[in-house]
Amino acid sequence: MTDNKHKHRMEIRSKVWLEVDGKPVFSKGRGMLFHAIEKHGSINMAAREMGITYRRAWGYIKAMEERLGVKLVETRKGGAHGGGAELTSEAKDLLSKFESLKRGLDQQVDKRFDKLFVAGPKK
Amino acid sequence: MTDNKHKHRMEIRSKVWLEVDGKPVFSKGRGMLFHAIEKHGSINMAAREMGITYRRAWGYIKAMEERLGVKLVETRKGGAHGGGAELTSEAKDLLSKFESLKRGLDQQVDKRFDKLFVAGPKK
Repeated sequence: MTDNKHKHRMEIRSKVWLEVDGKPVFSKGRGMLFHAIEKHGSINMAAREMGITYRRAWGYIKAMEERLGVKLVETRKGGAHGGGAELTSEAKDLLSKFESLKRGLDQQVDKRFDKLFVAGPKK
Repeated sequence: MTDNKHKHRMEIRSKVWLEVDGKPVFSKGRGMLFHAIEKHGSINMAAREMGITYRRAWGYIKAMEERLGVKLVETRKGGAHGGGAELTSEAKDLLSKFESLKRGLDQQVDKRFDKLFVAGPKK
Protein backbone atom coordinates (compact mmCIF):
# COMPACT_ATOMS: atom_id res chain seq x y z
CA MET A 1 0.00 0.00 0.00
CA THR A 2 1.55 3.29 -1.02
CA ASP A 3 0.78 6.94 -0.68
CA ASN A 4 0.80 9.53 -3.42
CA LYS A 5 0.90 12.72 -1.39
CA HIS A 6 4.54 12.69 -0.38
CA LYS A 7 7.68 12.83 -2.49
CA HIS A 8 8.70 9.38 -1.34
CA ARG A 9 6.85 6.11 -1.20
CA MET A 10 5.12 5.71 2.16
CA GLU A 11 3.98 2.34 3.42
CA ILE A 12 2.15 1.07 6.45
CA ARG A 13 3.62 -1.71 8.58
CA SER A 14 2.07 -3.55 11.47
CA LYS A 15 2.75 -6.34 13.88
CA VAL A 16 0.46 -8.31 16.13
CA TRP A 17 1.35 -10.81 18.83
CA LEU A 18 -0.04 -12.50 21.92
CA GLU A 19 1.35 -12.14 25.42
CA VAL A 20 0.79 -13.88 28.72
CA ASP A 21 1.71 -11.92 31.83
CA GLY A 22 3.55 -9.41 29.63
CA LYS A 23 5.68 -12.05 27.89
CA PRO A 24 5.38 -12.92 24.18
CA VAL A 25 3.55 -16.20 23.65
CA PHE A 26 2.60 -16.20 19.99
CA SER A 27 3.57 -14.25 16.90
CA LYS A 28 4.04 -14.65 13.17
CA GLY A 29 7.47 -16.23 13.75
CA ARG A 30 6.09 -18.79 16.22
CA GLY A 31 3.36 -19.54 13.68
CA MET A 32 6.04 -20.25 11.07
CA LEU A 33 7.70 -22.65 13.50
CA PHE A 34 4.37 -24.42 14.04
CA HIS A 35 3.85 -24.73 10.28
CA ALA A 36 7.35 -26.15 9.88
CA ILE A 37 6.70 -28.73 12.64
CA GLU A 38 3.45 -29.72 10.93
CA LYS A 39 5.22 -30.05 7.59
CA HIS A 40 8.25 -32.02 8.75
CA GLY A 41 6.82 -33.89 11.77
CA SER A 42 10.09 -33.05 13.49
CA ILE A 43 11.31 -30.21 15.69
CA ASN A 44 14.84 -30.74 14.42
CA MET A 45 13.87 -30.41 10.75
CA ALA A 46 11.55 -27.50 11.55
CA ALA A 47 14.37 -25.68 13.38
CA ARG A 48 16.67 -26.28 10.41
CA GLU A 49 14.10 -24.77 8.02
CA MET A 50 13.78 -21.73 10.29
CA GLY A 51 17.55 -21.32 10.51
CA ILE A 52 17.60 -21.75 14.31
CA THR A 53 19.06 -24.45 16.54
CA TYR A 54 16.99 -27.37 17.86
CA ARG A 55 17.70 -26.06 21.35
CA ARG A 56 16.23 -22.67 20.50
CA ALA A 57 13.12 -24.10 18.84
CA TRP A 58 12.60 -26.35 21.84
CA GLY A 59 13.04 -23.37 24.15
CA TYR A 60 10.35 -21.42 22.26
CA ILE A 61 7.93 -24.33 22.49
CA LYS A 62 8.58 -24.92 26.20
CA ALA A 63 8.17 -21.21 26.98
CA MET A 64 4.88 -21.07 25.04
CA GLU A 65 3.58 -24.21 26.77
CA GLU A 66 4.57 -22.92 30.19
CA ARG A 67 3.05 -19.48 29.66
CA LEU A 68 -0.19 -20.84 28.22
CA GLY A 69 -0.42 -23.81 30.56
CA VAL A 70 -1.18 -26.21 27.68
CA LYS A 71 0.74 -28.84 25.73
CA LEU A 72 1.43 -27.61 22.20
CA VAL A 73 3.80 -30.17 20.66
CA GLU A 74 3.67 -33.93 21.22
CA THR A 75 6.96 -35.73 20.72
CA ARG A 76 7.66 -39.42 20.19
CA LYS A 77 11.12 -40.76 20.92
CA GLY A 78 12.97 -43.37 18.87
CA GLY A 79 11.13 -45.75 16.51
CA ALA A 80 11.80 -46.47 12.84
CA HIS A 81 11.95 -42.79 11.90
CA GLY A 82 13.98 -41.64 14.91
CA GLY A 83 11.04 -40.06 16.73
CA GLY A 84 8.93 -37.15 15.63
CA ALA A 85 6.78 -34.26 16.69
CA GLU A 86 3.30 -33.07 16.02
CA LEU A 87 1.09 -30.18 16.98
CA THR A 88 -1.62 -30.82 19.55
CA SER A 89 -5.19 -29.73 18.77
CA GLU A 90 -4.63 -26.77 21.15
CA ALA A 91 -1.65 -25.71 19.05
CA LYS A 92 -3.58 -26.05 15.78
CA ASP A 93 -6.42 -24.04 17.26
CA LEU A 94 -4.06 -21.30 18.47
CA LEU A 95 -2.31 -21.18 15.08
CA SER A 96 -5.52 -20.94 13.08
CA LYS A 97 -7.05 -18.30 15.36
CA PHE A 98 -3.89 -16.20 15.34
CA GLU A 99 -3.64 -16.36 11.57
CA SER A 100 -7.28 -15.49 11.12
CA LEU A 101 -6.81 -12.51 13.42
CA LYS A 102 -3.65 -11.41 11.63
CA ARG A 103 -5.24 -11.75 8.20
CA GLY A 104 -8.21 -9.65 9.22
CA LEU A 105 -5.99 -6.98 10.71
CA ASP A 106 -3.66 -6.81 7.72
CA GLN A 107 -6.71 -6.10 5.56
CA GLN A 108 -7.94 -3.42 7.97
CA VAL A 109 -4.50 -1.82 8.12
CA ASP A 110 -4.32 -1.57 4.34
CA LYS A 111 -7.88 -0.31 4.08
CA ARG A 112 -7.46 2.39 6.72
CA PHE A 113 -4.11 3.50 5.38
CA ASP A 114 -5.53 3.73 1.90
CA LYS A 115 -8.49 5.76 3.13
CA LEU A 116 -6.45 8.21 5.18
CA PHE A 117 -3.20 8.56 3.31
CA VAL A 118 -3.86 7.63 -0.28
CA ALA A 119 -7.43 8.66 -1.04
CA GLY A 120 -7.08 11.92 0.90
CA PRO A 121 -9.76 13.65 2.97
CA LYS A 122 -13.42 13.53 1.93
CA LYS A 123 -14.59 16.61 0.11
CA MET B 1 -8.43 -7.73 26.66
CA THR B 2 -8.03 -11.12 28.27
CA ASP B 3 -8.82 -14.69 27.44
CA ASN B 4 -10.60 -17.17 29.65
CA LYS B 5 -9.65 -20.42 27.94
CA HIS B 6 -6.09 -20.72 29.15
CA LYS B 7 -4.65 -21.08 32.61
CA HIS B 8 -2.87 -17.75 32.31
CA ARG B 9 -4.03 -14.33 31.24
CA MET B 10 -3.57 -13.90 27.49
CA GLU B 11 -3.49 -10.48 25.88
CA ILE B 12 -3.20 -9.15 22.38
CA ARG B 13 -0.54 -6.60 21.49
CA SER B 14 -0.06 -4.72 18.28
CA LYS B 15 2.11 -2.07 16.73
CA VAL B 16 1.65 0.03 13.65
CA TRP B 17 4.13 2.37 11.98
CA LEU B 18 4.83 4.11 8.69
CA GLU B 19 7.88 3.54 6.52
CA VAL B 20 9.40 5.23 3.52
CA ASP B 21 11.71 3.12 1.38
CA GLY B 22 11.76 0.50 4.14
CA LYS B 23 12.82 2.97 6.86
CA PRO B 24 10.61 3.97 9.80
CA VAL B 25 9.12 7.41 9.35
CA PHE B 26 6.30 7.59 11.87
CA SER B 27 5.21 5.64 14.93
CA LYS B 28 3.58 6.08 18.31
CA GLY B 29 6.89 7.32 19.76
CA ARG B 30 7.36 9.94 17.03
CA GLY B 31 3.77 11.01 17.66
CA MET B 32 4.60 11.55 21.33
CA LEU B 33 7.55 13.71 20.30
CA PHE B 34 5.24 15.77 18.06
CA HIS B 35 2.77 16.23 20.92
CA ALA B 36 5.58 17.32 23.23
CA ILE B 37 6.80 19.87 20.64
CA GLU B 38 3.26 21.21 20.31
CA LYS B 39 2.92 21.46 24.08
CA HIS B 40 6.26 23.10 24.84
CA GLY B 41 6.91 25.01 21.61
CA SER B 42 10.49 23.84 21.94
CA ILE B 43 12.46 20.83 20.69
CA ASN B 44 14.72 21.06 23.72
CA MET B 45 11.86 20.91 26.23
CA ALA B 46 10.11 18.21 24.19
CA ALA B 47 13.28 16.11 24.16
CA ARG B 48 13.62 16.55 27.92
CA GLU B 49 10.03 15.35 28.45
CA MET B 50 10.72 12.31 26.27
CA GLY B 51 13.94 11.55 28.16
CA ILE B 52 16.10 11.86 25.05
CA THR B 53 18.79 14.36 24.07
CA TYR B 54 18.09 17.40 21.91
CA ARG B 55 20.48 15.95 19.36
CA ARG B 56 18.48 12.75 19.17
CA ALA B 57 15.11 14.50 18.87
CA TRP B 58 16.55 16.71 16.15
CA GLY B 59 17.91 13.63 14.38
CA TYR B 60 14.45 11.99 14.42
CA ILE B 61 12.85 15.12 12.98
CA LYS B 62 15.48 15.55 10.28
CA ALA B 63 15.23 11.87 9.28
CA MET B 64 11.42 12.10 9.06
CA GLU B 65 11.61 15.30 7.00
CA GLU B 66 14.19 13.84 4.67
CA ARG B 67 12.32 10.57 4.16
CA LEU B 68 8.97 12.28 3.62
CA GLY B 69 10.36 15.18 1.63
CA VAL B 70 8.37 17.73 3.68
CA LYS B 71 9.12 20.21 6.46
CA LEU B 72 7.62 19.02 9.74
CA VAL B 73 8.97 21.37 12.40
CA GLU B 74 9.53 25.12 11.99
CA THR B 75 12.13 26.63 14.28
CA ARG B 76 12.78 30.26 15.23
CA LYS B 77 16.15 31.24 16.57
CA GLY B 78 16.76 33.73 19.38
CA GLY B 79 14.18 36.37 20.36
CA ALA B 80 12.71 37.14 23.74
CA HIS B 81 11.96 33.49 24.56
CA GLY B 82 15.18 32.04 23.19
CA GLY B 83 13.69 30.66 19.99
CA GLY B 84 11.07 27.99 19.66
CA ALA B 85 9.62 25.26 17.49
CA GLU B 86 6.24 24.44 16.09
CA LEU B 87 4.70 21.74 13.98
CA THR B 88 3.92 22.55 10.36
CA SER B 89 0.45 21.84 9.01
CA GLU B 90 1.96 18.79 7.23
CA ALA B 91 3.16 17.49 10.61
CA LYS B 92 -0.22 18.11 12.26
CA ASP B 93 -1.94 16.34 9.40
CA LEU B 94 0.43 13.36 9.61
CA LEU B 95 -0.01 13.15 13.40
CA SER B 96 -3.79 13.27 13.28
CA LYS B 97 -4.05 10.72 10.47
CA PHE B 98 -1.63 8.33 12.15
CA GLU B 99 -3.50 8.56 15.44
CA SER B 100 -6.85 8.07 13.77
CA LEU B 101 -5.47 4.99 12.02
CA LYS B 102 -3.94 3.64 15.23
CA ARG B 103 -7.13 4.22 17.23
CA GLY B 104 -9.22 2.40 14.66
CA LEU B 105 -6.81 -0.51 14.57
CA ASP B 106 -6.57 -0.82 18.34
CA GLN B 107 -10.34 -1.17 18.44
CA GLN B 108 -10.28 -3.79 15.67
CA VAL B 109 -7.50 -5.72 17.39
CA ASP B 110 -9.47 -5.87 20.64
CA LYS B 111 -12.69 -6.78 18.85
CA ARG B 112 -11.12 -9.57 16.82
CA PHE B 113 -9.20 -10.96 19.77
CA ASP B 114 -12.36 -10.95 21.87
CA LYS B 115 -14.32 -12.72 19.15
CA LEU B 116 -11.71 -15.42 18.50
CA PHE B 117 -10.07 -16.01 21.85
CA VAL B 118 -12.53 -14.92 24.51
CA ALA B 119 -16.01 -15.57 23.16
CA GLY B 120 -14.96 -18.92 21.67
CA PRO B 121 -16.17 -20.46 18.42
CA LYS B 122 -19.74 -19.99 17.23
CA LYS B 123 -22.03 -22.90 18.00
